[in-house]
Amino acid sequence: MSIRKMMAAHPAAGGHINEPLAEAARKALDCAITCTVCADACSGEAMDMGQCIRVCLDCADVCTLTARLAVRQTGENAVAMRAILRACIETCEACAAECEKHDNAHCRMCVAACRECADDCREALEMVG
Amino acid sequence: MSIRKMMAAHPAAGGHINEPLAEAARKALDCAITCTVCADACSGEAMDMGQCIRVCLDCADVCTLTARLAVRQTGENAVAMRAILRACIETCEACAAECEKHDNAHCRMCVAACRECADDCREALEMVG
Amino acid sequence: MSIRKMMAAHPAAGGHINEPLAEAARKALDCAITCTVCADACSGEAMDMGQCIRVCLDCADVCTLTARLAVRQTGENAVAMRAILRACIETCEACAAECEKHDNAHCRMCVAACRECADDCREALEMVG
Amino acid sequence: MSIRKMMAAHPAAGGHINEPLAEAARKALDCAITCTVCADACSGEAMDMGQCIRVCLDCADVCTLTARLAVRQTGENAVAMRAILRACIETCEACAAECEKHDNAHCRMCVAACRECADDCREALEMVG
Repeated sequence: MSIRKMMAAHPAAGGHINEPLAEAARKALDCAITCTVCADACSGEAMDMGQCIRVCLDCADVCTLTARLAVRQTGENAVAMRAILRACIETCEACAAECEKHDNAHCRMCVAACRECADDCREALEMVG
Repeated sequence: MSIRKMMAAHPAAGGHINEPLAEAARKALDCAITCTVCADACSGEAMDMGQCIRVCLDCADVCTLTARLAVRQTGENAVAMRAILRACIETCEACAAECEKHDNAHCRMCVAACRECADDCREALEMVG
Repeated sequence: MSIRKMMAAHPAAGGHINEPLAEAARKALDCAITCTVCADACSGEAMDMGQCIRVCLDCADVCTLTARLAVRQTGENAVAMRAILRACIETCEACAAECEKHDNAHCRMCVAACRECADDCREALEMVG
Repeated sequence: MSIRKMMAAHPAAGGHINEPLAEAARKALDCAITCTVCADACSGEAMDMGQCIRVCLDCADVCTLTARLAVRQTGENAVAMRAILRACIETCEACAAECEKHDNAHCRMCVAACRECADDCREALEMVG
């Protein structure tokens, strides 16, 4: 499945899409599921992972939202899109900063996913008029 | 069901909660379902409501997210919470501005829900450290 | 805000709505936020609450979904609606059964919310053609 | 990003995961974003696409949920998981049946994504104890 191909099929797209926004949507989806798994794995760890569960759940929710908004092309909602991209960058960075403190394989992969998502949201933010 | 009572039962709350945040969560939930219904009603109208469907779906998604984050009290994630409250205010105002253009009962109720949610998010934003 | 009034404003409703479905949507929303708070409170408890966090998160996600589908009236999707109501009943009962094991105020309130939601979903299920 | 690698890092997984469930989660995520785009594209089409918008939004919501539940491994919630997989199969099939009626590129891709997701959910259903 390609988000790009789907977005290019929009009647108003004429085959052209906002590439950075499509890429941010892809990474946000990946980050959402990564954070969902990390929160679940953290709640199965023996040590107290309360703070890590919290930021991972928040990040999973924000990234799921970011992907949903980023792929919509009917009409426009640039003010909201910009605010959500900013929120996604902040939330991903907070999650990466917390996961970085823990020596678990799931936390390390979560750090990477959050940083990639934040980077792509930054690029998309520059392109949203 | 009372969001306040549930939040006050958190082991770290000691019976005290962030009232404006609890109120913003309540209003965001109401606004989320109102926008979901408005988008659905708009897609059943005879006229072209594409732009209104879009902003209502965006607003439903953002408000659902805002409520979820606002009720979490384990650990802290103030940077993300502030960014989401700002995004919720922007998205609600964009939705209210669009719905205001249409003479449908569902759009008028949606304007009111969006404005109330934006107002309560503004109050919560002042209280999030 | 009244889900009923919003639903009655749908162009195809003619003022008449599926009352049990509207009531199930209301209870599902309440249950979704209750389970979100209970999962968060459980992750802040000193004892190991992994299983309770898991069923509460599942229940919060399923109830959020149930409310979203239950309020849509454009066209029809009865087969999906029935399957979701059944899933919501099962998920709420599983969550209530787990929360019942724990002597926390948030867990007790969560049991009540899950049972009310399951009851209303059962009534709605009888009315979905 | 690999859902499999993340799931294998769960403290209780010991490197072994429920492969069909991981695959169903992947396909459900893809289907969720495909249906989100299809609903958006449909609301931008000149003809009346109300019914198609409705089933695509329902399917996007159900698939998003399915992915979230399918990746959780802390504790167990098999009764809920089975009910959700069944609901996802029904919802995907209803969406594919509707999209099949329309000669739009986005609808054709949506049919394919829904059928793949339903197939993988069927395989996962056989494996959930």
